[in-house]
Amino acid sequence: MAVPPSTRPRRLLPIFLGLFQGALLLFFALFITYDEPSGQAEHTSLVANQVYSTFPFFQDIQVMLVVGLGLLLTFLPLYGFSALTHNFLLLNFSMQWALVLQGLLHHFHHGQIHLDLHKLLISEFAAVTVLISVGAILGRASPCQLLIMATCEIPIFLASEWVIVTCLGVLDVGGTITIHVFSCYFGLGVSKALFRAKQQPLHPKETPTPRSDLMSLVGTLILWVFWPSFVAVLCQPGDAQHRAILNTLLAMSASAVTTVVASSLLERDGKLSPGHLQNGSLAGGVTIGVVADMAMPPVAALALGSLSAVVCVLGFRFLTPLLGRKLTLHDQCGIHNLHGLPGILGAAASVVVVLVASKDASGSRSSQLSPVGGNASEAVEGQWGDGGAGGQALCQAAGLAVAIGASLLAGLLTGAALRLPCLARPPERLCFDDSLYFKIQDQAESPGPDSGAEEGALALKE
Amino acid sequence: MAVPPSTRPRRLLPIFLGLFQGALLLFFALFITYDEPSGQAEHTSLVANQVYSTFPFFQDIQVMLVVGLGLLLTFLPLYGFSALTHNFLLLNFSMQWALVLQGLLHHFHHGQIHLDLHKLLISEFAAVTVLISVGAILGRASPCQLLIMATCEIPIFLASEWVIVTCLGVLDVGGTITIHVFSCYFGLGVSKALFRAKQQPLHPKETPTPRSDLMSLVGTLILWVFWPSFVAVLCQPGDAQHRAILNTLLAMSASAVTTVVASSLLERDGKLSPGHLQNGSLAGGVTIGVVADMAMPPVAALALGSLSAVVCVLGFRFLTPLLGRKLTLHDQCGIHNLHGLPGILGAAASVVVVLVASKDASGSRSSQLSPVGGNASEAVEGQWGDGGAGGQALCQAAGLAVAIGASLLAGLLTGAALRLPCLARPPERLCFDDSLYFKIQDQAESPGPDSGAEEGALALKE
Amino acid sequence: MAVPPSTRPRRLLPIFLGLFQGALLLFFALFITYDEPSGQAEHTSLVANQVYSTFPFFQDIQVMLVVGLGLLLTFLPLYGFSALTHNFLLLNFSMQWALVLQGLLHHFHHGQIHLDLHKLLISEFAAVTVLISVGAILGRASPCQLLIMATCEIPIFLASEWVIVTCLGVLDVGGTITIHVFSCYFGLGVSKALFRAKQQPLHPKETPTPRSDLMSLVGTLILWVFWPSFVAVLCQPGDAQHRAILNTLLAMSASAVTTVVASSLLERDGKLSPGHLQNGSLAGGVTIGVVADMAMPPVAALALGSLSAVVCVLGFRFLTPLLGRKLTLHDQCGIHNLHGLPGILGAAASVVVVLVASKDASGSRSSQLSPVGGNASEAVEGQWGDGGAGGQALCQAAGLAVAIGASLLAGLLTGAALRLPCLARPPERLCFDDSLYFKIQDQAESPGPDSGAEEGALALKE
Repeated sequence: MAVPPSTRPRRLLPIFLGLFQGALLLFFALFITYDEPSGQAEHTSLVANQVYSTFPFFQDIQVMLVVGLGLLLTFLPLYGFSALTHNFLLLNFSMQWALVLQGLLHHFHHGQIHLDLHKLLISEFAAVTVLISVGAILGRASPCQLLIMATCEIPIFLASEWVIVTCLGVLDVGGTITIHVFSCYFGLGVSKALFRAKQQPLHPKETPTPRSDLMSLVGTLILWVFWPSFVAVLCQPGDAQHRAILNTLLAMSASAVTTVVASSLLERDGKLSPGHLQNGSLAGGVTIGVVADMAMPPVAALALGSLSAVVCVLGFRFLTPLLGRKLTLHDQCGIHNLHGLPGILGAAASVVVVLVASKDASGSRSSQLSPVGGNASEAVEGQWGDGGAGGQALCQAAGLAVAIGASLLAGLLTGAALRLPCLARPPERLCFDDSLYFKIQDQAESPGPDSGAEEGALALKE
Repeated sequence: MAVPPSTRPRRLLPIFLGLFQGALLLFFALFITYDEPSGQAEHTSLVANQVYSTFPFFQDIQVMLVVGLGLLLTFLPLYGFSALTHNFLLLNFSMQWALVLQGLLHHFHHGQIHLDLHKLLISEFAAVTVLISVGAILGRASPCQLLIMATCEIPIFLASEWVIVTCLGVLDVGGTITIHVFSCYFGLGVSKALFRAKQQPLHPKETPTPRSDLMSLVGTLILWVFWPSFVAVLCQPGDAQHRAILNTLLAMSASAVTTVVASSLLERDGKLSPGHLQNGSLAGGVTIGVVADMAMPPVAALALGSLSAVVCVLGFRFLTPLLGRKLTLHDQCGIHNLHGLPGILGAAASVVVVLVASKDASGSRSSQLSPVGGNASEAVEGQWGDGGAGGQALCQAAGLAVAIGASLLAGLLTGAALRLPCLARPPERLCFDDSLYFKIQDQAESPGPDSGAEEGALALKE
Repeated sequence: MAVPPSTRPRRLLPIFLGLFQGALLLFFALFITYDEPSGQAEHTSLVANQVYSTFPFFQDIQVMLVVGLGLLLTFLPLYGFSALTHNFLLLNFSMQWALVLQGLLHHFHHGQIHLDLHKLLISEFAAVTVLISVGAILGRASPCQLLIMATCEIPIFLASEWVIVTCLGVLDVGGTITIHVFSCYFGLGVSKALFRAKQQPLHPKETPTPRSDLMSLVGTLILWVFWPSFVAVLCQPGDAQHRAILNTLLAMSASAVTTVVASSLLERDGKLSPGHLQNGSLAGGVTIGVVADMAMPPVAALALGSLSAVVCVLGFRFLTPLLGRKLTLHDQCGIHNLHGLPGILGAAASVVVVLVASKDASGSRSSQLSPVGGNASEAVEGQWGDGGAGGQALCQAAGLAVAIGASLLAGLLTGAALRLPCLARPPERLCFDDSLYFKIQDQAESPGPDSGAEEGALALKE
């Protein structure tokens, strides 16, 4: 039972990755160095403090992306190993690729790029976009397709981020617009162009089992716990960072409770849906990112957390089936409900916060109401940008529009490119199955001590 | 096959939770603000240092409660999703509820409550009591009952803590008396009043499977690793915190080794019991909390760790069956063995340490032997409280008595309230089953690829 | 169906462990104290800073060893509980044992040993050697044999480390030579002497299942995320530590990508092997340890990461089967491929880095090229040791030779001692089975809801 058509692309994967690693080595050899250490005690103490203040956040984010997000994707019962491995591979590939591109674009001085922890962190943020976008086509795309997608998405993300943050001066410390909204619509664009008008039938291996749902929920909980680190790592130390942490904690907590309310009310028999819990609990973190360090009362964080959970659960219940029917849009993990809708909600909230804060600011205590802190690169300190609060509000809205427009367009083009025959999308019957890519016991055909009774029963009958 | 009686309470859950979230939003809108940021560099650096010194501990504790404790409770093979979700929901609900009550009681100034990370941390500690108490009735209570229990337990805990720490001046940095002992006897009281004299028969879904035991052990290990953060987070920075960390590490390590010894000696065939390992390894952390920052030699931490593990394993082997038979007391997770007995041991140890330290202090090196550090709120610095060492020892004992008495009484009353028919305890045959509350494949009736061979075999026979 | 021969050794385990804990208590009571706290504000601030700078790294390493390594070893489907528990028990036992020995050897002043977090950390590093060595005989040795092995390995490790680091002045901040290479060849020596010339047949319970492979991969990912903490914790704060973190991150990332390339190219059908992924992704961390804080360009870290992954995968594919056939050497977890080969590669790299750096140093910027930082105990600061760069390079090579020679010899002797009949190695048919040591449902004989269809089917036929 050889599967000849899929042999070629399997060779493509190591060749592509191998060439990339070779080119990366060359690039590093030519251009990348460390800062020369100076022997001064002051300098040493400064670097040590930077390490102590950044590294714990960095590790938290690594746990989120490698373990938390990886486990979240294991809800497909026979595809857990692939989900975890592809997530891990894409993170590393995209991070390296972003490091190269960002080095060339932003940090190229006298033919050299000085590497430090902060630059690695920024590259990691870029890689997050790929990990999110993949959710739209999880299980139905080959690793090669995913790598090509990452190759396309990273430069487009960097360009889009440059326009949004640097040109428009959008404030978005937690990456709500630049990362979540962008990657969601990029992923949906890819999905649309890749699967075209063909409606994807429900695959028998697509239904989560109690155990795969449990693993996925553990992933959610890991993401939930460390989300404040993701939002606050790039904040100004001090009040802004403290406030970003608190706002994120409040929003996540409200999301968790509200998800239970919404899911329970929407399902006819009052039972909770695992998918709602796995995603809704995190929606608050997506929404709060863009306003986490702004001057707003704690109640706003709570309200946004609750609202985002409602939006996310409603999306799963009504919008995803609708988009599937009307637009034949396939969204495997429901990224539109976790990243798209809550992201748009966050962007809208940022417009309101900027406007309200400016009104209050025309009162007495003006210093409090200007944006506290700001984002890592080009934050506006102390006062809004050129156009005052109204201008800033407009910028936030424009940033959202750019993120959606650019990502949808680029996603559609990328998805079309992924249809190249040499990238060999797996045949439908082999989708959602680890055994296509890994030398593991075939769970469906030869039931081992771990596979289930259903197959066992089938095997006995045959 | 509709199950009409359980439909109503399912509506009760979202209504109750929804009203609570609404009231919380209102309360936040009216009373809760952030500290106004001052622009001074000194202030910024102070806040930044507070964040760096507290936030990593805070995250460790979140991992313990959300992931570690959640996984520990997944030892019921068909109830893992419920255990994880209910633990998560109760943590968030109780934390928000404690935030409100603590704000009103302790931090209400000029009609405002200033929110900061420390206050969230204190609320999280209050929420821990609920998560522990739930262990007594896990799997046999509905989510509504658990929420009502949390609603009652938090204010009683705050009152009890106020009496113990503020009035009596009990030293208890790791919450051994105030949290562990209190929540244990509260949970047992609830269990007694809820199940009354009816002995609970062994439920067929109650027996752990190898895989659910494995997941539960992973939860234990996560709790074990991060326990020092839980004990030390509220210590005075410097020597007291350093010492609390070391004492906790030593006690946990001794617990782990001694549990193996005790379990192996007690079982007739020398095989280790998974339940002993999952709980005994943590007993040292419970015991050490109350003395972790006191002046005592390292050997005391080791000895307490070993002793607590022995007590815990003996409790599982002899006391739990005895209490079940004689008092028809049902303790699903054995919280009496993990939190009750080791907590009482810790309280007794604190009496001894206070007395011994005072004797030594009448010698030459008096400064060393006074309590180093102390707990977060009303610690006695440098010298014991009003009555000298003897008085302090008496206070520690009185604190234990208050914790046990108040919690048992309050637990019995709460448990009686949980018998209200509208809260609809699940019928016996649907206990310990995720499918009652979640839209997941019914693991027992329609075996999927993840359910086991037993059901498969049964299905084939039928 | 009593199994009389195995009853005796089961009693041996608690007796041995109990006596050890008793002796430990005595030793602590006699010799171990805490530093006396001084009341000075300066001292308090110093200790607080030490805690904040060390404790997060310490916790990361605890997560690696207890959760990450434990899960990595659960790839044996019916032996997960044993793997996790034995790993946990051995960590605690070895850490306590190392604490005693290191206290006696290095820190014994005026009849007292002052305990602090740093000394616990050093003991933990010693315990790592045992956890690695165990990998060679996992599943085929009794807990008693493992404890005896730990008892022998710790003092030999301390002696070997003393020779390598103190006498030879080898630079090895991440423990590549002292820990990884040493423990690998010690484990292989034990395996050889324990199993002698008897080739171990493939055991039916030895084959991983998809689910056990998934758990094991999660363990790999946890190790992967926290590895930088392991390498950098003992570095000098400031540039050296920063650089060690960056080098480790780069090496780990390159390993992850290259493992996919190598595994995919080597397997005939292009499918990835789970074992390659689980180990190859970590190989970069082993290799980079010895050079992580040295003056070398970032490209070297990338190249070493890639190379180590290739070496590791080649080892699994060709060397392990060869050693099994030719030398009848049994290496259950493939520790030779993860710790041995990449460790030797790292040692070789350190020789090259020392020589190249010295050449460059004879140029203008000499300050940059001396070893930055150094290892914890006897690092050579600012300039190489007595013999200049050539001498240092020779020392690195000599250190490797000592590590391999001493560990192999000691391992063979230890393995011979483990053949003592009273230690009762489990009979072949009961290997790789939790039910030999734990009171858990026998997964193979009485299938529960979690065991698989294969056994279910068998049970039905019988």
